[in-house]
Amino acid sequence: PEKLKANVIEVIKKAKKLGQDDPRRVIHSLKVGLALTLVSLFYYFRPLYDGFGMSAIWALLTVVVVFEFTVGATLSKGLNRGFATLLAGALGVGAHYLACLSGEKGEPILLGLFVFLIAAASTFTRFFPQMKARYDYGVLIFIFTFGMVAVSGYRDDEILKLAHQRLSTILIGCTICVVVSIFICPVWAGEDLHNLVAVNMEKLASFLEGFGAEYFKIEEDGERVLIMIDDLQAYKSVLNSKAGEESLANFARREPGHGRFGFRHPWKEYLKIGALTRQCASQVEALNGYINSETQISQEFQRNIQIFCTKMSSESGNALKELASEIKTMTYSSLADCHVENAKTAVNDLKTFFKAAMLENIDLLEIMSATTVASLLIKIVTHTDEISES
Amino acid sequence: PEKLKANVIEVIKKAKKLGQDDPRRVIHSLKVGLALTLVSLFYYFRPLYDGFGMSAIWALLTVVVVFEFTVGATLSKGLNRGFATLLAGALGVGAHYLACLSGEKGEPILLGLFVFLIAAASTFTRFFPQMKARYDYGVLIFIFTFGMVAVSGYRDDEILKLAHQRLSTILIGCTICVVVSIFICPVWAGEDLHNLVAVNMEKLASFLEGFGAEYFKIEEDGERVLIMIDDLQAYKSVLNSKAGEESLANFARREPGHGRFGFRHPWKEYLKIGALTRQCASQVEALNGYINSETQISQEFQRNIQIFCTKMSSESGNALKELASEIKTMTYSSLADCHVENAKTAVNDLKTFFKAAMLENIDLLEIMSATTVASLLIKIVTHTDEISES
Repeated sequence: PEKLKANVIEVIKKAKKLGQDDPRRVIHSLKVGLALTLVSLFYYFRPLYDGFGMSAIWALLTVVVVFEFTVGATLSKGLNRGFATLLAGALGVGAHYLACLSGEKGEPILLGLFVFLIAAASTFTRFFPQMKARYDYGVLIFIFTFGMVAVSGYRDDEILKLAHQRLSTILIGCTICVVVSIFICPVWAGEDLHNLVAVNMEKLASFLEGFGAEYFKIEEDGERVLIMIDDLQAYKSVLNSKAGEESLANFARREPGHGRFGFRHPWKEYLKIGALTRQCASQVEALNGYINSETQISQEFQRNIQIFCTKMSSESGNALKELASEIKTMTYSSLADCHVENAKTAVNDLKTFFKAAMLENIDLLEIMSATTVASLLIKIVTHTDEISES
Repeated sequence: PEKLKANVIEVIKKAKKLGQDDPRRVIHSLKVGLALTLVSLFYYFRPLYDGFGMSAIWALLTVVVVFEFTVGATLSKGLNRGFATLLAGALGVGAHYLACLSGEKGEPILLGLFVFLIAAASTFTRFFPQMKARYDYGVLIFIFTFGMVAVSGYRDDEILKLAHQRLSTILIGCTICVVVSIFICPVWAGEDLHNLVAVNMEKLASFLEGFGAEYFKIEEDGERVLIMIDDLQAYKSVLNSKAGEESLANFARREPGHGRFGFRHPWKEYLKIGALTRQCASQVEALNGYINSETQISQEFQRNIQIFCTKMSSESGNALKELASEIKTMTYSSLADCHVENAKTAVNDLKTFFKAAMLENIDLLEIMSATTVASLLIKIVTHTDEISES
């Protein structure tokens, strides 16, 4: 019981943290509850119930399955479900009549064949990458609805009524989902994507800003500045952000205009920026490998190189931060360019310093890599800059 | 019509390619068709149909939704669906009796409240990362079944029969899915994971093997060796392999022993190796930035350094290739260690070369980074080696 209590407290703490990290999660949960309760009203009011009977269950199922965190995802699933049901319903009715023509014996065989063919073909289309990304759910619903209409048509003969009921209940379910998700504290996929891209850039920026101090173990007030390593490591999540960004962009395309974003906002640009940011993040990952490396470097040499390296990394960090805030506010300022220029100057300074210095000291190995990676970073920053002007 | 024809041919070509790339996709599609046809038998045979009536539709739905590409995914979804339905059914019946106690007026209000609370709470649990990874689907089914049983209980009073029918049809659906997916050309998530990890390492290896030639623009027979850049770029997919590996590992845990893998095969080790491979891939990504860079290097210096660099990169490539084949065959040989040793020697040779050489020539900038990254690679290779001994 002691251990159980500890576990429960642990879970509650985690739940609290999840809620505090993003209060929209709590609101979303309440919204799902609300939508379900609305749908269950169909059961409580007799006139509504009489119209649909047991089919009202489809409305319930629709709400549970379609309601997603972002408006875009909800719309996308709703449209998928609606169209797939419509199409499959029509095909199912067609298959049913076709099978009827073949008489008592042939009907089940023909229907079974249809189901087999349609299911196999549709399943195969799910392997197309484009289908997978956008219509995966629709294809599932298509198979199911076709199977249901075609097969139960064999028994019921009330096939048109069945198709009609199913379609209308699904429409009701979808409408409730969309209305609740748009009008009560909406969570826009587009806005999420927008913020995600900016936050990822900020993470890289804060790594770069801290890198100089961390790498050269700068001492301040006699004590080593212990920058939170955890803070620096935040960039790691950027490396794996691809799938998330792509699905958000897919959803964002479906959303109506909201806030500062129009209906045909160029969401694909975000993917490009995201890809560049990830490229940048791999460079940072490589840089990260050099923190805490234990190559000995002569004190004097280190002092000379330190200024340039620190400047390069902090300036490119500043540039990224500036770009991130430009994205956030959707304005264009020349500050980022200015930081990029500074970083470039630092690179050139370092190069001329190397050319001038007497190089008896050969353990450049470590430092060099840091500088080259930094120069690569700058390349990428300028690249990003070009694109962010959208 | 001309354009339409071209489009259709395009799609057919793509489909053919998908099928040839992985014939298991075609087989999987046929398996889904087969499973669905089996389920629809319930409609065709009168004795079976009489037992279940309209509830047989749940078996159909179950097959469509539960049947996944790999055995592990199918099992996981089936278990999720089964347990969630059981739990939700029990809770739903409980809620129904509780609500009955509160009389005619209070019943719908109380039931609505229950639905709201359960839906909101369950939706919130979906935000826990662990729940999301393993039980996401189960939670959805839980909400739906609870809603269905609690709410339709208000109308039907045949609630126990309903819960029983739903449970047994779902069981039948799950059984058919699992049987078909295990006994007809099974696709094991564990095996996929195993291969994926090995293939990723091979991709990196082939990059490293090609890198030396590409970077130094080695000339052969007077013509520049044009290694297929596409081949080299294969490694890029490794960078984004995290999500795929994790879900495969999750599914693999559920699979019974098969082939060379026991039931409790240490799947987590694969994730570790995968993470190291990705780390390695970011280094490679950084290296890739230096191909085609246009820094001028003095001919003589380049000739000196070329031997070491090429050796480092090809030896570490060989080591990775060796490790990949060790993983594939699940044997342990000392060949990889041997290659790692060679690569390390090359690094040391290069270092002593640098120490000995007169360094008037300063444009090391480019070369240096390549060597350092290579040395980092070697670090990682040894690291991987340690773990692959599982």
